[in-house]
Amino acid sequence: MAHLRNFTPGPVEVSDEVLAAQYGPQRLHVGPGFSQAYVRTTENLRKVFGTSGYVAIIPGSGTLANEIAISAMLDAGQTALILDAGYFSSILKWAVEGCGANAVLLPVADGNPADPEALRVALATRKIDLVCYTHVETSTGLQQPVEALAKVAQEAGVPVMVDSVSALGTCPAQMDDWGISIMTSGSQKGLESVPGLGLVAVADTAWARIEAKQSPRGAYTDILRWRDQLDAARDWHPSLTTMPVAAVYALDVAMNKILSEGLDTRYTRHVEARDFLCGAMEKLGLELQIVPGSRASGVTAIKTSGRFRSSDLVAALAAGHNIRIAGGFGANKEDVFRVAHMGDNAKVGVLRPVTDGVESFLEQQI
Amino acid sequence: MAHLRNFTPGPVEVSDEVLAAQYGPQRLHVGPGFSQAYVRTTENLRKVFGTSGYVAIIPGSGTLANEIAISAMLDAGQTALILDAGYFSSILKWAVEGCGANAVLLPVADGNPADPEALRVALATRKIDLVCYTHVETSTGLQQPVEALAKVAQEAGVPVMVDSVSALGTCPAQMDDWGISIMTSGSQKGLESVPGLGLVAVADTAWARIEAKQSPRGAYTDILRWRDQLDAARDWHPSLTTMPVAAVYALDVAMNKILSEGLDTRYTRHVEARDFLCGAMEKLGLELQIVPGSRASGVTAIKTSGRFRSSDLVAALAAGHNIRIAGGFGANKEDVFRVAHMGDNAKVGVLRPVTDGVESFLEQQI
Repeated sequence: MAHLRNFTPGPVEVSDEVLAAQYGPQRLHVGPGFSQAYVRTTENLRKVFGTSGYVAIIPGSGTLANEIAISAMLDAGQTALILDAGYFSSILKWAVEGCGANAVLLPVADGNPADPEALRVALATRKIDLVCYTHVETSTGLQQPVEALAKVAQEAGVPVMVDSVSALGTCPAQMDDWGISIMTSGSQKGLESVPGLGLVAVADTAWARIEAKQSPRGAYTDILRWRDQLDAARDWHPSLTTMPVAAVYALDVAMNKILSEGLDTRYTRHVEARDFLCGAMEKLGLELQIVPGSRASGVTAIKTSGRFRSSDLVAALAAGHNIRIAGGFGANKEDVFRVAHMGDNAKVGVLRPVTDGVESFLEQQI
Repeated sequence: MAHLRNFTPGPVEVSDEVLAAQYGPQRLHVGPGFSQAYVRTTENLRKVFGTSGYVAIIPGSGTLANEIAISAMLDAGQTALILDAGYFSSILKWAVEGCGANAVLLPVADGNPADPEALRVALATRKIDLVCYTHVETSTGLQQPVEALAKVAQEAGVPVMVDSVSALGTCPAQMDDWGISIMTSGSQKGLESVPGLGLVAVADTAWARIEAKQSPRGAYTDILRWRDQLDAARDWHPSLTTMPVAAVYALDVAMNKILSEGLDTRYTRHVEARDFLCGAMEKLGLELQIVPGSRASGVTAIKTSGRFRSSDLVAALAAGHNIRIAGGFGANKEDVFRVAHMGDNAKVGVLRPVTDGVESFLEQQI
């Protein structure tokens, strides 16, 4: 079976250098060699998260990283407000309730970004202990006005947790400047590496709240333990547990690749790729799910507008073009298709076979 | 730098077939191909755990698997009794306290297995809601009388959680027959695969207790969610989250390798390897840390008896023989060295360079 080039929103295609970093005999998760790679990777991640704080690389996924981050910030019985922009926003509710806290959902209008004023009103109306939202909503390709939302929360004195699983590495993140307390990601999307690692970044200002937590902290899921382990054994055993060593070496190479390109160059390239894709889709008469100005740098959702079923397009691109794209999410499954343009896929030349494939599919429709 | 053949107690050396299963372009964690591999691997794991119940393959490590298993079985405020046989027993305490429960430690005499009678007395003395112990204590090479201990707990009506991270795949496990409610492992030790996956096996009889849990369940850390996801989407998206796909394919190959050899043959081979190593060490005048009859099939701890520092032996074997072994744990660090004989290392011919290396090191001591 031919390998399908993967334009689904993660795990993304991974470069040969990153894949190669995984290969070879088993290596240990202790000792100076691994420790240096682990610490170097956390330091490189700080640049991408935009923080002088702490970053943990934790075996697991973005969902685990979200659970760790949210439970760090919330005591049982407290209340989190979640900006509900779709599936990946609403699963933050799951993490909030999973630690015994209450979740209040503030709905976001379809296709639009969350309104900072609506957040301001909501925070004035009731006692909220944490604001949570996705940086990019993978199910729709919505990129939130992260900074404006964080400023509103900050003015209300409420800490902010941002799920940047789908965004990090495709667009700017400035945790410290934007006043975000805790932010998460995963290894397999905008950071262009293999799956298996959840990432949790903690601003220096967040520790007081985290340390004050009264209800049970978990064990592996307790971010304090990861921080303390790094402090205690940075040169020999920097992580709390047996690591998927190959995945850490792969992420190390991916981070070097990202920083060698330069973050500004990289983000500009993602915007150009998105604009090319969005322009090509509109030229074909297709409508985009998200309003201009809020379209994600890493993933775009396009409406079928009743002209075809997205599953037919997905199948046609796989069969005729060796390209894998994604359908919509939930109720929109057949009404939307999604193309991710993260990492090496965020190039006009790489995306052109996708736009050509969509064009030829549409031509074959009656 | 030459690759050192790894005789530390995990991650173990991995065969070329298992390594090869990881290689190649990224694959997705959804779709029939991956789903079949995931489900097949869980079904093969049931044979090794000795259960007709459910097995979850969860991105993370054995420590995470322990947290998930223990928190599934305990409400906040309940009490777990932990048989404390060393470092890896006492970190079960961490998982118990991490979910807001109380931990009572029952100390196990150095070098000896836990005494079922002592457990019987302890369970008669106070209200205990869960008994926890390690199948093999990695820090000392103690293999517990798992079945006898479980029977005592069962007679007292208390469920049992067993950490089999270091044992599974090296010696029999019969969860159902032995009356164990929940048992954990990791991919990188006796199962001979790469790190990155925690394993949680749940006996059918345990679900009533798990479903009755009142205190917060976590999200990713809620075993009910993993079970429900498998039930709901076995053919397309059997796991709750983005999986480290390569690690699952590697474990699939490793499980086929294990079952092709046959479990009985495999366990006998591990016993023979252990007996060869123990015999060779005693012939060299070295004393073993664990009494006969309770020595683990997968890892052996040998005392230096003040004749040398274990770190000097570790260094000598690395420098002169391309072999990596481990020192002792905690206070015993320099007084003990440990050799793991798991998987392909559980062969007399493979172990002989280790025993030869120890012999030549001893000859060079004054």
